[in-house]
Amino acid sequence: MESIMIYVPIILAVLGLVYMVIKQSWVMKQDAGDGKMKEISDHIYEGALAFLNAEYKLLAIFVVIVSILLTIVSVVVPTTHWLIVIAFIFGAVFSAFAGNIGMKIATKTNVRTTQAARTSLPKALKVSFGGGTVMGLGVAGLAVLGLTAFFIIFFQFFMGGQWTTTGDMTIVLETLAGFSLGAESIALFARVGGGIYTKAADVGADLVGKVEAGIPEDDPRNPATIADNVGDNVGDVAGMGADLFGSYVATVLAAMVLGNYVIKDMGGSISDAFGGIGPILLPMAIAGVGIIISIIGTLLVKIKSNDAKESQVMGALNLGNWTSIILVAASCYGLVTWMLPETMKMEFFGEGVLEISAMRVFYATLVGLVVGAVISSVTEYYTGLGKKPILKIVQQSSTGAGTNIIAGLATGMISTFPSVLLFAGAIWASYAFAGFYGVALAASAMMATTAMQLAIDAFGPISDNAGGIAEMSEQEPIVRERTDILDSVGNTTAATGKGFAIASAALTSLALFAAYVTFTGIDGINIFKAPVLAMLFVGGMVPVVFSALAMNAVGKAAMEMVQEVRRQFRDIPGIMEGTGKPEYDKCVAISTKASLREMVLPGLLTIGFPLVIAFVPMIFGMKNMAIAEMLGGYMAGVTVSGVLWAIFQNNAGGAWDNAKKSFEAGVEINGEMTYKGSDAHKAAVTGDTVGDPFKDTSGPSMNILIKLTCLIGLVIAPILGGHIEDGVTSELHQTKKEIKVEFITNNIITAVVANTRIDSKGNVDRDVEVLNGSEEELKTKIAALEVGENINVNITNNRKSNFLN
Amino acid sequence: MESIMIYVPIILAVLGLVYMVIKQSWVMKQDAGDGKMKEISDHIYEGALAFLNAEYKLLAIFVVIVSILLTIVSVVVPTTHWLIVIAFIFGAVFSAFAGNIGMKIATKTNVRTTQAARTSLPKALKVSFGGGTVMGLGVAGLAVLGLTAFFIIFFQFFMGGQWTTTGDMTIVLETLAGFSLGAESIALFARVGGGIYTKAADVGADLVGKVEAGIPEDDPRNPATIADNVGDNVGDVAGMGADLFGSYVATVLAAMVLGNYVIKDMGGSISDAFGGIGPILLPMAIAGVGIIISIIGTLLVKIKSNDAKESQVMGALNLGNWTSIILVAASCYGLVTWMLPETMKMEFFGEGVLEISAMRVFYATLVGLVVGAVISSVTEYYTGLGKKPILKIVQQSSTGAGTNIIAGLATGMISTFPSVLLFAGAIWASYAFAGFYGVALAASAMMATTAMQLAIDAFGPISDNAGGIAEMSEQEPIVRERTDILDSVGNTTAATGKGFAIASAALTSLALFAAYVTFTGIDGINIFKAPVLAMLFVGGMVPVVFSALAMNAVGKAAMEMVQEVRRQFRDIPGIMEGTGKPEYDKCVAISTKASLREMVLPGLLTIGFPLVIAFVPMIFGMKNMAIAEMLGGYMAGVTVSGVLWAIFQNNAGGAWDNAKKSFEAGVEINGEMTYKGSDAHKAAVTGDTVGDPFKDTSGPSMNILIKLTCLIGLVIAPILGGHIEDGVTSELHQTKKEIKVEFITNNIITAVVANTRIDSKGNVDRDVEVLNGSEEELKTKIAALEVGENINVNITNNRKSNFLN
Repeated sequence: MESIMIYVPIILAVLGLVYMVIKQSWVMKQDAGDGKMKEISDHIYEGALAFLNAEYKLLAIFVVIVSILLTIVSVVVPTTHWLIVIAFIFGAVFSAFAGNIGMKIATKTNVRTTQAARTSLPKALKVSFGGGTVMGLGVAGLAVLGLTAFFIIFFQFFMGGQWTTTGDMTIVLETLAGFSLGAESIALFARVGGGIYTKAADVGADLVGKVEAGIPEDDPRNPATIADNVGDNVGDVAGMGADLFGSYVATVLAAMVLGNYVIKDMGGSISDAFGGIGPILLPMAIAGVGIIISIIGTLLVKIKSNDAKESQVMGALNLGNWTSIILVAASCYGLVTWMLPETMKMEFFGEGVLEISAMRVFYATLVGLVVGAVISSVTEYYTGLGKKPILKIVQQSSTGAGTNIIAGLATGMISTFPSVLLFAGAIWASYAFAGFYGVALAASAMMATTAMQLAIDAFGPISDNAGGIAEMSEQEPIVRERTDILDSVGNTTAATGKGFAIASAALTSLALFAAYVTFTGIDGINIFKAPVLAMLFVGGMVPVVFSALAMNAVGKAAMEMVQEVRRQFRDIPGIMEGTGKPEYDKCVAISTKASLREMVLPGLLTIGFPLVIAFVPMIFGMKNMAIAEMLGGYMAGVTVSGVLWAIFQNNAGGAWDNAKKSFEAGVEINGEMTYKGSDAHKAAVTGDTVGDPFKDTSGPSMNILIKLTCLIGLVIAPILGGHIEDGVTSELHQTKKEIKVEFITNNIITAVVANTRIDSKGNVDRDVEVLNGSEEELKTKIAALEVGENINVNITNNRKSNFLN
Repeated sequence: MESIMIYVPIILAVLGLVYMVIKQSWVMKQDAGDGKMKEISDHIYEGALAFLNAEYKLLAIFVVIVSILLTIVSVVVPTTHWLIVIAFIFGAVFSAFAGNIGMKIATKTNVRTTQAARTSLPKALKVSFGGGTVMGLGVAGLAVLGLTAFFIIFFQFFMGGQWTTTGDMTIVLETLAGFSLGAESIALFARVGGGIYTKAADVGADLVGKVEAGIPEDDPRNPATIADNVGDNVGDVAGMGADLFGSYVATVLAAMVLGNYVIKDMGGSISDAFGGIGPILLPMAIAGVGIIISIIGTLLVKIKSNDAKESQVMGALNLGNWTSIILVAASCYGLVTWMLPETMKMEFFGEGVLEISAMRVFYATLVGLVVGAVISSVTEYYTGLGKKPILKIVQQSSTGAGTNIIAGLATGMISTFPSVLLFAGAIWASYAFAGFYGVALAASAMMATTAMQLAIDAFGPISDNAGGIAEMSEQEPIVRERTDILDSVGNTTAATGKGFAIASAALTSLALFAAYVTFTGIDGINIFKAPVLAMLFVGGMVPVVFSALAMNAVGKAAMEMVQEVRRQFRDIPGIMEGTGKPEYDKCVAISTKASLREMVLPGLLTIGFPLVIAFVPMIFGMKNMAIAEMLGGYMAGVTVSGVLWAIFQNNAGGAWDNAKKSFEAGVEINGEMTYKGSDAHKAAVTGDTVGDPFKDTSGPSMNILIKLTCLIGLVIAPILGGHIEDGVTSELHQTKKEIKVEFITNNIITAVVANTRIDSKGNVDRDVEVLNGSEEELKTKIAALEVGENINVNITNNRKSNFLN
């Protein structure tokens, strides 16, 4: 190992975590208020802990089962190393720990925000955003720390800390994929389980509390109110955190895998100031620097005036956000030009190996940053108060719930138009700039500000909770007004944050998808093969069914909550008069149990399908390469359909929510001002009921579904592919690589590279790669082949052409 | 031309049309009732004619524009012949004519059914089903007649009625694609425009009539009631007819294209008793025989008892339907074994050319028949009265409209699970049996009973109309009871018919998709290429946006209807007392105008996207093959997403509809019988409002969207592909085909076939095909290459292998 650079990201991550601890202790030192406030806050804290503990128990079982499966696989399949199990466990533990930090700080910050709001608005923002910052840095810091540390360990273990071959590096990265799989598994629990939890509690509390008993929201007499407040933390804080933790890790991993393939395309090794692994280190470096930039960004988020309104608060958040985005762009420029060779060679499917300047990789990172920013604006347009789509839904509410629903569905559906064109453009552009390495780095650049994004995201539910505590502890109106300003801004950032999460999931999946193809060694995924096309269909269906299961789960869990609240109202004397004490913990327990139970089926769907597609055809003797292509088709189907359904459901849900909220300030319908309590408002409430599971359960779950699907694919990939070109498996396979130049027309020469594998049974599997181009181009392409590695390369030259020597 | 067989389908089609005329005159001879009935029926008839006339005007403009575009293309692009314009015009005219026959007979049969219902139920069924039969035979007869006639003409024109080369046959079939494009264009107007019409009228009539004025459905005082009844015919009769007409033609065409490729894979010519075109004639023969079988099936649909209930009527329909399916299976066996060579050679992607027995093609047709039958059962399960999903929605209605909506959405979403697995299994199985030729023949077999399916479909809206006329003309209750029995059965057949239409659209699109790949000559569609993946995303988005536009269109058109009805209630004195006469024609005019205006945007979306994808990159100098692959990715995206959204929307809509209807007979909710007028019923009505555009507008439109997209792709294909292997373009291209055997390991030999094209500018484009296999297998594969055609085949054999001679 010649370069110290490999340790830099780890140092930056640790710095981020140190800053997090400092910020954490500052938040904890803030005044936590008086008796009643403290009591409520403690209930929420304990409820959150109860959920976490229950979740961890289920998680532990899950981790043990998957670990056993992975161990078996690593024993049976020679191309998989048992260290993947360790990486998997740590990935799960790190993600769970990050979620734990986030939940704890969020449930401690809420009451401190209420207390701060008694003094001033700037103070309240400082406290609530401080809590968010802790959360953001915890997630980003642990993600980078874990991934980087394991990379160093595996790099030492498999390669002795020195560059050997791309084949060995592939083993390193495949094993590292375990960490990512662990992280994303936790996200499944946190995002899907959390999503079910939050809506079950919310809908349950509303149905009996608001509708049946006629008491206001956040009323302490409602036994489900604590569960409702816990739910905000479980869903919006822990769920979102685990989601982005998973994206962060997966994106960097995928970029590293593709960086390794850049080195492969360049002849199997490069010499640079980073021990020959510059392209692999780059994504980690961007992630590390992003943590420091995010800290700078968070420092800019403050307001001065106590009379500030939403726009000033929003302005402060925007200042911090945009500054960090611009700083990331600048640092990407620096890092790319510093760490990458000036020109690189990359293979473009159908075009052969092309020369790419480092600057083009930088352009690709800009594409990622632009997508992150624009998708937020698109989301904001379709779900923002006062914007045209919302006004239209409001108008349609006047003719009843039916037309309100149609308008909301249509809004969500139409919002896929700009979003998908944006993603399609981003795929195209970043690929055109720098191949799939460009796509992965676009995602990495976008994710670099994860800590900042999460700070902005987490501050919303903290403020929401703070408002709830103010209400429940009967604070003066000014306190609720101040927390409401923060909450209102938080609602906007929640919507845009969801856009960011979708974009990150989409780009991450694409990067994983590309990494998958390189891992398996297939030539591509040809959907004109009927089994591949069939799997594309099946993949497209899974997000739809998953969404339905998640929605039904909310309904079922909410009904259980309703029964329990009804029971308490009936059985606990004096509960409605405020003399009897509701059993909050029972409601928390119901939400917890129901949410974890109900996530099993969608979870099985997510994990089961790729396994069935990979292993059932194997039993029937299908060729591994054919299976790999089918699985690729499935992954593409899940990604395309999942992204669509994520956008559709999130935006429809957000739009219904804000259409309902529009009535609070009053809206003009057919020339008349209409308020809360009107028929139109009631129609809008119906829309919001439908939208709630859309935007908080099934919609966000799509992110996990598509990423986890692609990650499972990536982990299965080596089983299907086998590393034909590395030494580890040489006892199993005989490999022969031959190159011939054969067809020559008008200076366009076609060479054929045959890669023949013979397994221990003597079965022959041969991939043939065709190189097309001028003599000059072909020389470059052939030079890029892994000649000189552990491959039996046999260049023959028996006709017409004499340039191969 | 050695075989008379080419004329047989045309004869069968004419026989079908003759039987249709006989049946038509029988229906017309039936008693059309007395004054009031006749008056109402005339209003509906005139309204239908008004819509048709307005539609034809818009159609004429559309046909002229497209014809001009196609003419330009055929002049500029040497691989496209101007005769495609003629075929296009005739395709449009034939489809429009079939729609015209259907609309006229349906609007004449309705009143006769009412009149017959005054006598007896068996008589009413005989009349209404007679009308449906006329419709079904009109569509199927004209489809087969037109397609077959043009095939014979083009076969004469381009090939002199004698087999020459597969290249020439490709020109014949490409030109024939114009007929299919014309037919599907009309379907766009009829299905999308018709869908908007029917729901705008329905919703408009209900909102002002039932809700505001409190008068019952089908009340003659409601000015929109005639438009509503016209709408049933426009949407369910003409729309469905044009949809299946399009599927029928496109399926047979695609099967013919793939039949030509079977001949190509077999060495470029075969000798059989059918002038060497058996595989091409087979799909036409199945279609022709299907017409006669459908006639037999319709003859079995009758009941004897005047006290029959729904189940007996349904039983009669099922008897006819199942008989025709079984007869088609039997005739497929006969035709396949008679018309196909005992063994054929087909290329399977990635597996090379394999030998296939004719029996396997027969198995593929069975797959199609099974899909058609099973998809109907799946649809029936998810949308049928008394089935579990519906009961669940009913239960969820008790907690309000919100939960009813969620339950309906979830039902539609979950219903994609069995449906998509069925399709995926069908693709896989029929491909495994007989390649893409098998997929196309599976579709052809399923579509063979089109006439029967349409008869069953059209009988529903006719009975619905008959009930309306009974209501409006104030018949005795027994009359309405009888028509209600028919209507109720009609509702079930409408739902299953929609399932059949989706299945037909899905299989048709797949067949077209396969034909597209063979037309362009690309090696497949590799979604690992970023631009292709980007287009897969864009394609996935289009059905979602299209659906939203269609839903919004219904909303807008319905609002215009509401305004007009309100105006009439206000301005026409005595209208509510029944003394003033409502201006029915104004409402008809509004529906007509609005529906045709609102379909322009979704129509442009459908046609515009493929054109932009094909031609914009061309301007930027992208290679045709790369564009062809991108367009293929787009087509796949549209198909996968479109099928999903079709199933989702149709089944959700159907489920809401029947959940609402469940309240008519009363349902048990939480142990209590609940009826119409309850809060739960009101919630169910809201669900139905959302479901109406789902199941009657946006859902069915998906069929057209996916088929038309694939057809446009097929028509563009020759522009992108060019026929490198036929004589017509030889002045433009130099073509060289070379085969080399190079790599030999353990008896597995790899040969490489290079196909080099040099265009007039000297640019070289080379496809390389790799053949893998044992010596024996390779001999077969190489024999299957088009050696001996107008290709410069140059087999070299310069190393190790000596079996190529």
